[in-house]
Amino acid sequence: MADDLRACLEAELAKPPFHRWLGPVLESVEAEADALTVRIPARPEFARIPGEPGFHGAIVAGAVDIAAHAAIVIRTRGPTPTVDLRVDYLRASTGADLLARAEIVRAGRSLGTVRVDVSEPGGRAVAAGMATFYLRRD
Amino acid sequence: MADDLRACLEAELAKPPFHRWLGPVLESVEAEADALTVRIPARPEFARIPGEPGFHGAIVAGAVDIAAHAAIVIRTRGPTPTVDLRVDYLRASTGADLLARAEIVRAGRSLGTVRVDVSEPGGRAVAAGMATFYLRRD
Amino acid sequence: MADDLRACLEAELAKPPFHRWLGPVLESVEAEADALTVRIPARPEFARIPGEPGFHGAIVAGAVDIAAHAAIVIRTRGPTPTVDLRVDYLRASTGADLLARAEIVRAGRSLGTVRVDVSEPGGRAVAAGMATFYLRRD
Amino acid sequence: MADDLRACLEAELAKPPFHRWLGPVLESVEAEADALTVRIPARPEFARIPGEPGFHGAIVAGAVDIAAHAAIVIRTRGPTPTVDLRVDYLRASTGADLLARAEIVRAGRSLGTVRVDVSEPGGRAVAAGMATFYLRRD
Repeated sequence: MADDLRACLEAELAKPPFHRWLGPVLESVEAEADALTVRIPARPEFARIPGEPGFHGAIVAGAVDIAAHAAIVIRTRGPTPTVDLRVDYLRASTGADLLARAEIVRAGRSLGTVRVDVSEPGGRAVAAGMATFYLRRD
Repeated sequence: MADDLRACLEAELAKPPFHRWLGPVLESVEAEADALTVRIPARPEFARIPGEPGFHGAIVAGAVDIAAHAAIVIRTRGPTPTVDLRVDYLRASTGADLLARAEIVRAGRSLGTVRVDVSEPGGRAVAAGMATFYLRRD
Repeated sequence: MADDLRACLEAELAKPPFHRWLGPVLESVEAEADALTVRIPARPEFARIPGEPGFHGAIVAGAVDIAAHAAIVIRTRGPTPTVDLRVDYLRASTGADLLARAEIVRAGRSLGTVRVDVSEPGGRAVAAGMATFYLRRD
Repeated sequence: MADDLRACLEAELAKPPFHRWLGPVLESVEAEADALTVRIPARPEFARIPGEPGFHGAIVAGAVDIAAHAAIVIRTRGPTPTVDLRVDYLRASTGADLLARAEIVRAGRSLGTVRVDVSEPGGRAVAAGMATFYLRRD
């Protein structure tokens, strides 16, 4: 059920101690599309250059990882280890919130592949990512 | 001169506001090999699972990005934008400090490619990474 | 003009000696979307396992590279070197023709990023790819 | 036994119909290092630009895939599907033979990660690659 899914996703996002610092929030869920969007609200300590608002590449990579992982949870309803992560940086972030939309490309029996688009409110594309997850429960 | 380089690298590592939170430190420099090692001292807020010490994948990705970027500075002596970043997660981190050794594979006129190995003290391999940088001063 | 573009793309696809062996053909162009689809007609020598029709991973990687490169030509109207290429293999190919749809994600002044979906006629997804190109004319 | 391994690797390299066209040969094995080198002897039909000897990026990608796969066979002694493949193109090839040295970075129970360096005789680096394989026998 949609509310169950949202509650499960929000729980997954809230759990990791690192997330308590980064502060990702579930923006929207497109369960029928196996997709969701995570928002990373802007904070000064995300900056790469002193006095400039743009986020550090590691924050953008974190947004890709977190959104991709949350999307896989639509299928697995539980944690899954990341096998690998790729981030293509398209434009410097301006320091606005990051919106990371993650969509499952394929979720097989053993492996899941998720595509992520990171943009800013208004639609400015900041990064494109891909993540692979190991889905087997052992 | 080696001291100049070390000072330049330490300045680059100290600058970004995000680094003040993450806390990367220059562990060693192998200038002749175009390589260096950055240490990320362990902190509880890096954790992925409550009550477990292992680091979040985004922290490992940050270690790859930061070490690779620092290595490129051996050549450029200044900031360079990241074009893309890849991280292969080899083993879950145990929550020990991360040691990210970055080595320049190629630094051309326009693009630089850096290979990174992330391990824990004692040599346990945690991740392998690659990063591409844009070196052109425009 | 659309016909000019198609002619330019077909010329780019026909030129490389390697393409004369692989045989990629321009399937369709969505110029307004900065996207196009290249077809790789099936041939027995593309196989990975003797007596089985499925294509070798290198053929799928070639489809990603060729389609991504052709898409960048929509903007550059000329050859551009590949900086890096990534292929996520989603399913074993069945030996049907490959349809590689490439879409420009970002084409800046210096770098271009292209996303590719490789599928078989009927829509079976085989691979997802990303390629980065260097666009600067020096 | 070393001869058994070499025979097993040569059989794996000889099997795929695609390899009969590409012509990869086992150059050397460093079994203790979980590494080996595959040579792709130069052929005019590998060219990217008519009248120029440099190889097409898809041939370089094929060298990465084939060498990485062969290296994993040191451990598995059998075929394993490629999960994903990454190639960083460092320099245009000159049309000399390609030497792809693949080294296992990690071979766990389920997944294997292999790093590949593609160079030309004399040591000119052409590309750096990484490949992930699924090792589970199901």
